[in-house]
Amino acid sequence: MIDRLIGKIREKSNPTVVGLDPSFGMLPDHIKNEAIERYGKTPEAIGKMFTVFNKAIIDEVHDLVPAVKPQIAMYEQYGLEGLKAYLETIRYAKEKGLMVIGDIKRGDIASTAEAYAAHIAGVEIEGAHFDLWMEDAVTLNPYMGYDGIEPFVRVCRERDKGVFILVRTSNPSGAELQDLVTGGRPVFHEVAGLVSKWGLEAMGSQGYSRVGAVVGATCAEQGAELRKLMPHTFFLVPGYGAQGGTGEDLKGYTDANGEGIIVNSSRGIIAAYLKDTDYDGKHFAKSSRKAVLAMREDLAKSLG
Amino acid sequence: MIDRLIGKIREKSNPTVVGLDPSFGMLPDHIKNEAIERYGKTPEAIGKMFTVFNKAIIDEVHDLVPAVKPQIAMYEQYGLEGLKAYLETIRYAKEKGLMVIGDIKRGDIASTAEAYAAHIAGVEIEGAHFDLWMEDAVTLNPYMGYDGIEPFVRVCRERDKGVFILVRTSNPSGAELQDLVTGGRPVFHEVAGLVSKWGLEAMGSQGYSRVGAVVGATCAEQGAELRKLMPHTFFLVPGYGAQGGTGEDLKGYTDANGEGIIVNSSRGIIAAYLKDTDYDGKHFAKSSRKAVLAMREDLAKSLG
Repeated sequence: MIDRLIGKIREKSNPTVVGLDPSFGMLPDHIKNEAIERYGKTPEAIGKMFTVFNKAIIDEVHDLVPAVKPQIAMYEQYGLEGLKAYLETIRYAKEKGLMVIGDIKRGDIASTAEAYAAHIAGVEIEGAHFDLWMEDAVTLNPYMGYDGIEPFVRVCRERDKGVFILVRTSNPSGAELQDLVTGGRPVFHEVAGLVSKWGLEAMGSQGYSRVGAVVGATCAEQGAELRKLMPHTFFLVPGYGAQGGTGEDLKGYTDANGEGIIVNSSRGIIAAYLKDTDYDGKHFAKSSRKAVLAMREDLAKSLG
Repeated sequence: MIDRLIGKIREKSNPTVVGLDPSFGMLPDHIKNEAIERYGKTPEAIGKMFTVFNKAIIDEVHDLVPAVKPQIAMYEQYGLEGLKAYLETIRYAKEKGLMVIGDIKRGDIASTAEAYAAHIAGVEIEGAHFDLWMEDAVTLNPYMGYDGIEPFVRVCRERDKGVFILVRTSNPSGAELQDLVTGGRPVFHEVAGLVSKWGLEAMGSQGYSRVGAVVGATCAEQGAELRKLMPHTFFLVPGYGAQGGTGEDLKGYTDANGEGIIVNSSRGIIAAYLKDTDYDGKHFAKSSRKAVLAMREDLAKSLG
C-alpha cells in the first residue's frame, strides 16, 4: 500500500489527498433539489446527494491526485443511508484508480480492534471472504496503546494495507493531552516514538512503513522535529487550505527528497465552487479541479 | 439521562450493563444454521443471527438490568448488514425499557465531532428530525481534547443524553500512553481532571454529570483515586467477569452510598450458556439470566 501510494504521488507529481467530507450546506442547489424531489427530505436523499457530489469531483480530479480521504463521520451521521454513500464513494474512487484512506479514527482494545480491522482486512464468513469497507488505509487513535493497534499492523503486513495513527492534531484543544510534558518532552513525541517503533513491523520497500502518522500542519519546526522522531513514517497532514495551513508550513515535514507526506485538503477543494467567480451554477467540480491544480503548484513550489 | 440511569439502577438494585458484543464463534449452532440456511454464508445472515441472539438475551434480562451496551465494532465489521443488526438491537432494547449505551469510542476534531454527535443528537434534514442511531449515551475518546468533546456535551445538556469518556482502560497496553507521568502524575489523572471539569457543563439533579468516564476495573486503590479526582462523574466500568475483574475489585470506584458506577459484563453474560451444564441446546438465554442474577448478587455483596 505505502509503495503504491508513493508510486502514485510520483506519477502525478502531487502529494495531495482530497478530503471527501461533504455536508448538506456545501452542496450545489441543483443536487439538493433533485434528490429531495425524488426522495423527499430523508436520509436517503442525503445519501444520494453525497454520492452524486463526490462522483462529480472524483471525475474531475482522479487524473491529478493519488488518493481521496472520505471522513466517515459526515456519512455516519445519516445512518445506514449515509454509510451507503460512503461505500459507493469508495467503490467509485477505486474504480477510477484512486487509493482510498478511510478517515475513521477508530481505537479500542485488542478483541474489538480485531473487529474494526475488518475495515482493511475484510471478514471471513465460513470460508467466504467479503471486503465490505474497501479502504486501502484507515486512520486510528492511539489512546489504548499497542494492543488496539496490533490487529491493524498485522493486516498491513499480510494484506499490504495501511494505517495512519494520530500523533499531533492541529485543532485548538489538541494540546490539552498531546502537549502534556512527560520525561521532558510532550506526550505526542512519546506517541511518535511508539508509532515509529510499531511501524518497523510493516515496512514497505521504499524506506517507509505501512504504519503512518497523522500530524497536523502547524509549523515547520514541529514538522522537522516529528520527521526526526519518525524517519520511516509516512505523514498524513490535514489542515491545508480551509484550516489555514500553506505549503510553506509543510517544510520540515518532508524527507530530504521533499517526499514522505501526503497533504489533505477537504473544503478548500470540494467546496471551491463557492468562491469561484466562474462558477456557472452547474459545473461545480470544475472549480475543484482548479483548486487541485493550484494546490499542486503551491506544494511543488514549497516542497520541491 | 444520568438521572434516569441512576433511577433504573436503584429500581432494579443492579448496576449491571450487559455488553451485547456477539461474535460468530459464540453463537448457538441452531441460530447459525437457521440463518445460513435462509441467507447463505453472507453478511446478511450474520446480521440476522446477531439480531435473533440479542433479542433472546434482552427478553431474558430486561427485567433485571438497567441498560445494555452494544459494541459497534462487532457489527461494523460486517458492513451495512451488521450495522442494521446494531440498530435493530437498540430499537428492541429500548422497546423493552432498557437504556442503551452505544460503545462507539469516537473521537475527532470539532466539525467532525459535530457530525458524530448525531449518534445522540439525531440529524435535521430541512426541518425534519431523524433519530437514526437511537443511543441514550455513547463512549468517546479524549485524545483530541475538548473541541472534539464539546458538541457531545452540548447535546447531553440540551437533549438529556450522556457520554462516557475513556480515562483509564484496563487492556495490557493501556498504560503505554495513559500512565506516562506528567507533572508528577499519570496522564490519565490529567484526563480525569479534564473529564470532571467538562462534566460541570451537563450536571443532572442527583449529583452526577451526564458526562461520565470509562475506567477499567483494575484495582480498588486506583478506583478510589479516580473517584476522588472525579467526584461527580459516573463511571462505566468494563472488565468484570470474562476480563478478570470481580466485585471486590470495584470497591473504591463507588461513592459513599455504593453508587456512581455501572459495571459491564459482555462475554460472561451473553456466552454464559457455553459454560452452563444445564444448557439444553436451545434456551441459551436462560444461562444469561442466571449469569446476571449471579453478578447482581456478587455486586450487592461487594458494593452494598
